[in-house]
Amino acid sequence: MDSEAIKHQKAQVGQEAVQYIEDGMVIGIGSGSTMWYMVEALGKRVQTGLNIIGVPTSYATRKHAAQLGIPLKTVDEVDHIDLTIDGADQIDAQYQGIKGGGASHLMEKIVATNSTKNMWIVDESKMVPAFNYPVPVEVIPYGSKQLERRLAQMELQPRLRKNPAGEFVTTDSNNYIIDLYLDPLTDPIRLANQLNPLVGIIEHGLFLDMVNTIIVQHEQGPEVINVR
Amino acid sequence: MDSEAIKHQKAQVGQEAVQYIEDGMVIGIGSGSTMWYMVEALGKRVQTGLNIIGVPTSYATRKHAAQLGIPLKTVDEVDHIDLTIDGADQIDAQYQGIKGGGASHLMEKIVATNSTKNMWIVDESKMVPAFNYPVPVEVIPYGSKQLERRLAQMELQPRLRKNPAGEFVTTDSNNYIIDLYLDPLTDPIRLANQLNPLVGIIEHGLFLDMVNTIIVQHEQGPEVINVR
Repeated sequence: MDSEAIKHQKAQVGQEAVQYIEDGMVIGIGSGSTMWYMVEALGKRVQTGLNIIGVPTSYATRKHAAQLGIPLKTVDEVDHIDLTIDGADQIDAQYQGIKGGGASHLMEKIVATNSTKNMWIVDESKMVPAFNYPVPVEVIPYGSKQLERRLAQMELQPRLRKNPAGEFVTTDSNNYIIDLYLDPLTDPIRLANQLNPLVGIIEHGLFLDMVNTIIVQHEQGPEVINVR
Repeated sequence: MDSEAIKHQKAQVGQEAVQYIEDGMVIGIGSGSTMWYMVEALGKRVQTGLNIIGVPTSYATRKHAAQLGIPLKTVDEVDHIDLTIDGADQIDAQYQGIKGGGASHLMEKIVATNSTKNMWIVDESKMVPAFNYPVPVEVIPYGSKQLERRLAQMELQPRLRKNPAGEFVTTDSNNYIIDLYLDPLTDPIRLANQLNPLVGIIEHGLFLDMVNTIIVQHEQGPEVINVR
């Protein structure tokens, strides 16, 4: 459970993020604990007359947003998405991001890719000089053991993700996750270029050259970073 | 139905391909009408003492091979695959291939990628100066309409594949297929480089720099092309 102080900080960040949402926008809505507060704040604005359409990136967010009366569509039911607001697992000094600790980066990346602008809201512990968080890679189950071997040959420290019962974790699309334990990962662009052509990989959790605005939660209040 | 003459030619090609299979090998087994005869010929050799393990690339081939008593494993149950024999939809003048007309190129590509050597067996109509066959791309259903739009912006002539009833065709992995109607496609390597980084794409049907040996069925008998 978050302490009252942390809850207050996350609520401040959520409140800050919601200021960027204008009437008539299509908004991608991500997930995570800070996002929960953003969705709450967005729900309040919708209940007092804000007219937007939300595109959730996970089933959990869809449920939460629907309960608050936020009108929702899927990515294929809208023409475009004006702004997507989501969390991130880590953000490095070049403002590249890793997402997918929760195995939902595929849908998040599809929504983010189709968004005119992307905003990430994170607590300050997520801001790092270089990534030291495993890079999740969503893979086709068929051949995943061979793929893990190939990634090991490439010295990418792969590990097929299992749950505590020892079963392979499956994603919303019924695929597996291979985590790459690279610490530190200093050249994510090179890694993406290594991963993109590999057969059996659906999508990695590197979100590169993608974020426009980052809102960081600090004890003393939210910090806004305008990246591009 | 194949005429008796065509049947005879396909059987000759299948027979020729089987000559490359040696005792103790692990063999990837593809699908298609010419492959059907290869599987028949392989079954006969197994029944008379050849000791191999087969790795089928489709459910249809698995069933056929199992009926003939060919011992089978999946790609993740073997250490390596010595040789994969499969068909192709088209082969261009640089011996690049397109596969996936039957929406099964993902599993075929996973097996081919994990094979030391690859052989394609085709009839002569499949050998073309430049591709004029649609390139199949397996895609995540979520966001597929947006992806089709993006591919259209890239002037890649995409069309989400539908069955005669107008429903989206789904693959063995429950994904959709977008066919790219590029005629002629003269630079498949450039196309692959355009497709690889796109979010939502699982695998395209271009099999590049991959084939070692091609056996072409002609009226006058099989022709063997040693590519690499």
